[in-house]
Amino acid sequence: MKACIITIGDELLIGQVVNTNASYIGRKLFEAGVVVEKTVTVPDDENQIVKEFREAFNRFDVIIVSGGLGPTHDDITKKCICRLFKTKLVLNKKVFLHIKSMFRHRRILMPQSNLIQTMVPELATILKNNAGTAPGLLIEKRGKIFIAVPGVPLEVEHLFEAQIQKFLIKKFKKKKDRVFILNKTLHTIGIPESLLSSRISGFDNALLSVKDVGFSLAYLPGKYEVRLRITAKSQSREKAKAGLVSAIKYLQSQVGGFIYSYREEPIEKVIGDILKHKKLTLAVAESCTGGLVSSKITNVSGSSKYFLNSVITYSNKSKQKLLGVKPSTLKSYGAVSRQAAIQMARGIKRLASSDIGLSTTGIAGPTGATSKKPVGLVWIGYADKNKAFAKEFVFTKDRMRNKEIMSKMALEILRRKLLNI
Amino acid sequence: MKACIITIGDELLIGQVVNTNASYIGRKLFEAGVVVEKTVTVPDDENQIVKEFREAFNRFDVIIVSGGLGPTHDDITKKCICRLFKTKLVLNKKVFLHIKSMFRHRRILMPQSNLIQTMVPELATILKNNAGTAPGLLIEKRGKIFIAVPGVPLEVEHLFEAQIQKFLIKKFKKKKDRVFILNKTLHTIGIPESLLSSRISGFDNALLSVKDVGFSLAYLPGKYEVRLRITAKSQSREKAKAGLVSAIKYLQSQVGGFIYSYREEPIEKVIGDILKHKKLTLAVAESCTGGLVSSKITNVSGSSKYFLNSVITYSNKSKQKLLGVKPSTLKSYGAVSRQAAIQMARGIKRLASSDIGLSTTGIAGPTGATSKKPVGLVWIGYADKNKAFAKEFVFTKDRMRNKEIMSKMALEILRRKLLNI
Repeated sequence: MKACIITIGDELLIGQVVNTNASYIGRKLFEAGVVVEKTVTVPDDENQIVKEFREAFNRFDVIIVSGGLGPTHDDITKKCICRLFKTKLVLNKKVFLHIKSMFRHRRILMPQSNLIQTMVPELATILKNNAGTAPGLLIEKRGKIFIAVPGVPLEVEHLFEAQIQKFLIKKFKKKKDRVFILNKTLHTIGIPESLLSSRISGFDNALLSVKDVGFSLAYLPGKYEVRLRITAKSQSREKAKAGLVSAIKYLQSQVGGFIYSYREEPIEKVIGDILKHKKLTLAVAESCTGGLVSSKITNVSGSSKYFLNSVITYSNKSKQKLLGVKPSTLKSYGAVSRQAAIQMARGIKRLASSDIGLSTTGIAGPTGATSKKPVGLVWIGYADKNKAFAKEFVFTKDRMRNKEIMSKMALEILRRKLLNI
Repeated sequence: MKACIITIGDELLIGQVVNTNASYIGRKLFEAGVVVEKTVTVPDDENQIVKEFREAFNRFDVIIVSGGLGPTHDDITKKCICRLFKTKLVLNKKVFLHIKSMFRHRRILMPQSNLIQTMVPELATILKNNAGTAPGLLIEKRGKIFIAVPGVPLEVEHLFEAQIQKFLIKKFKKKKDRVFILNKTLHTIGIPESLLSSRISGFDNALLSVKDVGFSLAYLPGKYEVRLRITAKSQSREKAKAGLVSAIKYLQSQVGGFIYSYREEPIEKVIGDILKHKKLTLAVAESCTGGLVSSKITNVSGSSKYFLNSVITYSNKSKQKLLGVKPSTLKSYGAVSRQAAIQMARGIKRLASSDIGLSTTGIAGPTGATSKKPVGLVWIGYADKNKAFAKEFVFTKDRMRNKEIMSKMALEILRRKLLNI
């Protein structure tokens, strides 16, 4: 089953809005076992929309359209659907009552402009949209599925969660020739893509012995992270599953230490789980990262269980006053030094009475470099009751990128220490 | 001049990555006066890529391709370019030296896999990529422009800022029928989109007297911000410019107080400029925002001039110990209260010896609500030598969204106080 996603709207083409609908729908279809082979965005132009509709309907089995169902003049998707399927718009009483009740609930008179939304293509089945006024539209013809949803992300999500996803999964269960596509994404951190790829270049060979399963491995580089996406395709769900396990085992054997998660979760979530499990508390002293480490940690719901407090000491004075960094250290080695990082980690541990203290001190840039200390330099400090140490890294010349990378690396150092790897 | 953007990669189709490159490139082309009429995403599949290349090259004047230039096996864009233009890959010495020097700088041996990146289509002009290893590729043929850039967003941005944007603008300056499209984005904060739109519903009427200029106004809602993008089109650059000024004046007259910037800059930059100008120092005490306010403030280069330090007091104990919040206050009113917010603001001002103290205390969610205090509730406190106050808001039920909105609102309250509006 091949699918195409068509998103409609000038605002997408000129980059005023990022097309999150396309990625959301792609993910949902993939989860339902439908492979998206093309995504296309077209302007609010009738002829171009109809042209893409026609091409997609000829070539693909599932077509999902998003956008152009609103109440204003540039919403022409329904008109284009009528042209494609040679059908006409009719008033739908259920939709009419739904829209009326929505406005009543909000104590607003239903605007005249919403009347157009009560008209739907005669051929279409209505998908009730509890998150908005425009209903979703479903048309099945020549064994193909054509679905139109509004462009508002919240409404797209509502329609998929409540109806479309179930419909698709049910639909494709019946097919005998169904291919099971399973995938797993491994999250690595602290190793460049090219180095990673050379370490796992034996992927295909290592999996030659796994029969009836097709594998693919994709590299998804992000900010100082590379996600590895393994896809296993097979006509047997069991074989695809077992294949995935074999593939994961191979990757673990080659780059296991760099893999921080096997789920779609950030490193701060992984660390939170370990801290909770080990019943340890954490406090953070940040300089160059300016609060980003703490903000990441507190992104995790329930972090108040293990995260006590942080200080962000931008000035030397505050490093001395709050964390007890020695003036002689700052004088001899500077604020960006192994010694300062360790004293900061120890200082915050003491101040917060936590089990662990974590610290960052560096030069985020673009200014602040000295002849011996380049922009991008950072010392990350760690202290617990047994041990204190600091590690040095040099990252980029870009301030925002440095803050992000330095924060992630601080969390990664904490992870490795917690797991003794 | 009509353009098409082709983005390549399975990860985009199955929704693992949101296609921010397409919107970024669309915006840049729009700014250069080139209208994007289609965006298409295709898998890492040679035949499908070549098919889209061919169609796009026949139909459009400008084709921008992103993705598939990396060092791994699934990067096949260059191969497809060679098929389309009937050219071959040759070693480029400049690219080779650039990649080698990048690895030398990072003190890593250049991996064998990066060698493939030194090979480029013979027909192509190289666009040097200082942000990564893969160069951009530019081909001009039959009066058309074909450009390929890597898929890493930072590298796309680097190549556009440094080279492609200038090239396109220069290219299209020569055209006689050029239309000047100028745009300006006004950043508003603290007012919902619907209220904003009713306040400025007279936009079109107010600009009727401006001749030979076409206007459009787009609402770009973000996280607790709405950007207003004004576009003025005219065959005269001067008229477009003057039109833009008239449009801005109208919007200022209607919603001036909510506009925090006229440039692409975040609110923390605006605040930094005011603090520097007024020679005031700032310190922050955060609870529910968990470091995000501080992280935003320190995103600004040079913030060490006015930002002294922060504390993130997640626990009640740390609120007492570090900020001097009274136990009786916590007992009578709770940590999420006007009284606690004011004491936190005063406490951090005292601790840091700063001119201004700013504080946040609230319930980010999803847990932590009580019968009287819902998720999304926040008190934002402010203190200077003359005055201390706190304001209450209730935002959403989503933790990440709340952290973002609460942080922005804290900065907005500071902005309004600093400017006495």
